[in-house]
Amino acid sequence: MATIASNSVRISRTFSARVGNILNNRNGRLIHHTKRYLKTQDGKRVDFGFLFDIDGVIVRGKKLLPSAKDAFRMLIDENGKFKVPVIFVTNAGNTLRQKKAKALSDWLDIEVVAEQVVMSHSPLKMFKQFHDKHILVSGQGPVVEIAKGLGFSQITTMDTLRQCFPHLDMVDHNRRKPAPCAFEQFFPRIEAVILFGEPVRWETNLQLVIDTLLSDGKPYVAPKEIPYPHMPVLACNMDLLWMAEACMPRFGHGCFLHSLESLYQKISGRELKYTALVGKPSELTYRHADFLLYEQARNMGMNGIKTIYCIGDNPESDIYGANLYDKYLQKRVIHTNVNVIKRTQQQTAGSQIIDVDETDTDSDLDSERTSALKDNSAEVYAKSCQSILVCTGVYCSSRDYVTYGRARSSNHNHRDFVLDPVLTQPKFVTQNVHEAVKLVFQKEKVISPFVS
Amino acid sequence: MATIASNSVRISRTFSARVGNILNNRNGRLIHHTKRYLKTQDGKRVDFGFLFDIDGVIVRGKKLLPSAKDAFRMLIDENGKFKVPVIFVTNAGNTLRQKKAKALSDWLDIEVVAEQVVMSHSPLKMFKQFHDKHILVSGQGPVVEIAKGLGFSQITTMDTLRQCFPHLDMVDHNRRKPAPCAFEQFFPRIEAVILFGEPVRWETNLQLVIDTLLSDGKPYVAPKEIPYPHMPVLACNMDLLWMAEACMPRFGHGCFLHSLESLYQKISGRELKYTALVGKPSELTYRHADFLLYEQARNMGMNGIKTIYCIGDNPESDIYGANLYDKYLQKRVIHTNVNVIKRTQQQTAGSQIIDVDETDTDSDLDSERTSALKDNSAEVYAKSCQSILVCTGVYCSSRDYVTYGRARSSNHNHRDFVLDPVLTQPKFVTQNVHEAVKLVFQKEKVISPFVS
Repeated sequence: MATIASNSVRISRTFSARVGNILNNRNGRLIHHTKRYLKTQDGKRVDFGFLFDIDGVIVRGKKLLPSAKDAFRMLIDENGKFKVPVIFVTNAGNTLRQKKAKALSDWLDIEVVAEQVVMSHSPLKMFKQFHDKHILVSGQGPVVEIAKGLGFSQITTMDTLRQCFPHLDMVDHNRRKPAPCAFEQFFPRIEAVILFGEPVRWETNLQLVIDTLLSDGKPYVAPKEIPYPHMPVLACNMDLLWMAEACMPRFGHGCFLHSLESLYQKISGRELKYTALVGKPSELTYRHADFLLYEQARNMGMNGIKTIYCIGDNPESDIYGANLYDKYLQKRVIHTNVNVIKRTQQQTAGSQIIDVDETDTDSDLDSERTSALKDNSAEVYAKSCQSILVCTGVYCSSRDYVTYGRARSSNHNHRDFVLDPVLTQPKFVTQNVHEAVKLVFQKEKVISPFVS
Repeated sequence: MATIASNSVRISRTFSARVGNILNNRNGRLIHHTKRYLKTQDGKRVDFGFLFDIDGVIVRGKKLLPSAKDAFRMLIDENGKFKVPVIFVTNAGNTLRQKKAKALSDWLDIEVVAEQVVMSHSPLKMFKQFHDKHILVSGQGPVVEIAKGLGFSQITTMDTLRQCFPHLDMVDHNRRKPAPCAFEQFFPRIEAVILFGEPVRWETNLQLVIDTLLSDGKPYVAPKEIPYPHMPVLACNMDLLWMAEACMPRFGHGCFLHSLESLYQKISGRELKYTALVGKPSELTYRHADFLLYEQARNMGMNGIKTIYCIGDNPESDIYGANLYDKYLQKRVIHTNVNVIKRTQQQTAGSQIIDVDETDTDSDLDSERTSALKDNSAEVYAKSCQSILVCTGVYCSSRDYVTYGRARSSNHNHRDFVLDPVLTQPKFVTQNVHEAVKLVFQKEKVISPFVS
């Protein structure tokens, strides 16, 4: 025992000296301590990571689900540090990720840092081409701070817009008022609209967004003609509904988006088109989470991860998204192999190596989504994404989407994500998150942690 | 002169004695003074009445349009009393009609009484089968008072519902709160939903209405299955947009209804169907106004009216509605004539007279709309309805629905009123309401008032 212990210390110090295994994040906080990691039965380090949904998996509303703590105890060492890369992905977007990380830390009694949290808006960090544009934002919470944190610099909120041009906001009779002064000559044209999450007073937000689109960014000037295509609209979180304490699910941001799309269509006769639609089940969100898992893995001294296990409660959001991303990854694997073969052939033939454009694999994603991801190379990403459905949230097997008491005949996916029913089928189903983690350990043949 | 004057007085007294020409309305207020009335060139009393839209014809926002006073001076005698039946029809529904009558009186410097005002909800008075039901209401202003004035007796507002069941209203994070107590056992089932006008906080209203429909009136109980058809929904005012001070039109109640329909469709997979949709251009509103014009005419000592002149600024609401009603009236005229011929034939043949069901004529109206009007006989109504478009509101000929700077390719009519473009064409177009009244006088060959 003593020998093992002293050996552990010696190896540990050497390991520390050699690979600098204690790394600080931007804020000087310890992220991971790589002294302990999970190992498989054949003696290798594990090469998987976890992606957890939050609502319906770890908590419901504000209440911690009973199985959550047990699940996470399996993933941490005796110092409370993660032994395997873990990301929390939520479609919430009304708080800063630091705050969500703190909430998770409090719920689970584990240190969760901001870099482990992917909010619905997080992938917008990659959309650098919009960061200098004058944007109109909607949502609740600290939207300006969130936007700045993502890299945006010229931000107008709905409240500011209606204060400058009160004639635009007429539905509420009690809030009607004259304009403070003539802002028209000073107010710069709005160049893009970002919808972070469900706002308050949908009538105001719907009106101002549609005004902005129809007027090409100057809602105080009657347009000579309606511009089409309209300016860029980036939206985060397309969840139509979510489970809270009520007996039936509540409206999510997807309901707001649906109202916006259908009103824009009715008023202008044209379809509203998103430049970016992020948040589960968008592949962009999984791509972003994948990259963060890779960073964690590197910090832990791993080469990367091969498999992501996605645990969620919503078949049409979590499971669908995970399966969609898996499909995307499979195509990349095929494409990468083809490239390797091509390169080998070219080298053999003596011709110059031609770089195959990797964006061929991204042909299923629209061009904006593709370009947002161009700066990351293929090797960074996982090879597969496995979906696990738990029964503690939206889905409950005894009632088949019981939230309405019977199998729904309606499609609750967003219009732009055509539902392929096959993709809502999870790879695995477990009662709760604890069972899900145990299942993964079993599948991956994980044994007790190996002390390096 | 003196002789005419004294004769006038004598005839007037006689006339008063004979027909009781000073009649009081329900509140003891003088409605009409029938001493003076309009006459045509062939010496007969006129047999037409006016139906005026308000916004865009008489006022814009809160500002009186320049031509309005001149127009109404032509319609009143020297005592400021109307010489011809006049009704004001508005799709507004957020005030009591007494208040709207007072506003008109102040604007025009003429006494306008409540009985001359048709709000979007006024026809609901005819829907007696709902008056004893427990209704959920939405809208702004004194909705409870409005509902009671129409005959409803069991009324719950959105605010009351969300106070009893706060878990239902979750979009606004700052308003979330626990339930005060368990109201479920006490709260009676909701039996119908009435949408009076655009509410404030659409997210709350949309959520609660949809909850009510999906749960068959008990939104605090998860339904075993979704009822369909859903409970009755009665909506007032389907105007998609309206002209206010802003350079582009503002959302009307039609936008709220459109959001509701499309969300209900998305969530349940089914179409939301209205039991009643009142307000222009619904024939129910014109029918109701027609009946009120008849009452006024009788009070003035006329037999009734033959022609209604409808003056409005919105082709897809005012003009469309007037033309639609005219079409309905023409069918009734034909049908009535056919009945007369049939009866004559039957009498000649010696067979028993069979009553022809007048509702055959109403086959274009749905059954609820038909049954609401059964208690009024055919003789009460006008024979034709002529639409006159003015250029002081939504429509402006120089820009062809300029509110968007070009001819719209979209259909702004409500889904249930399929747009027949022919029916949006007015019979006449004039610059403003004064020109419209002059046109009618010219057409009807009206001369100076004859003193009875």
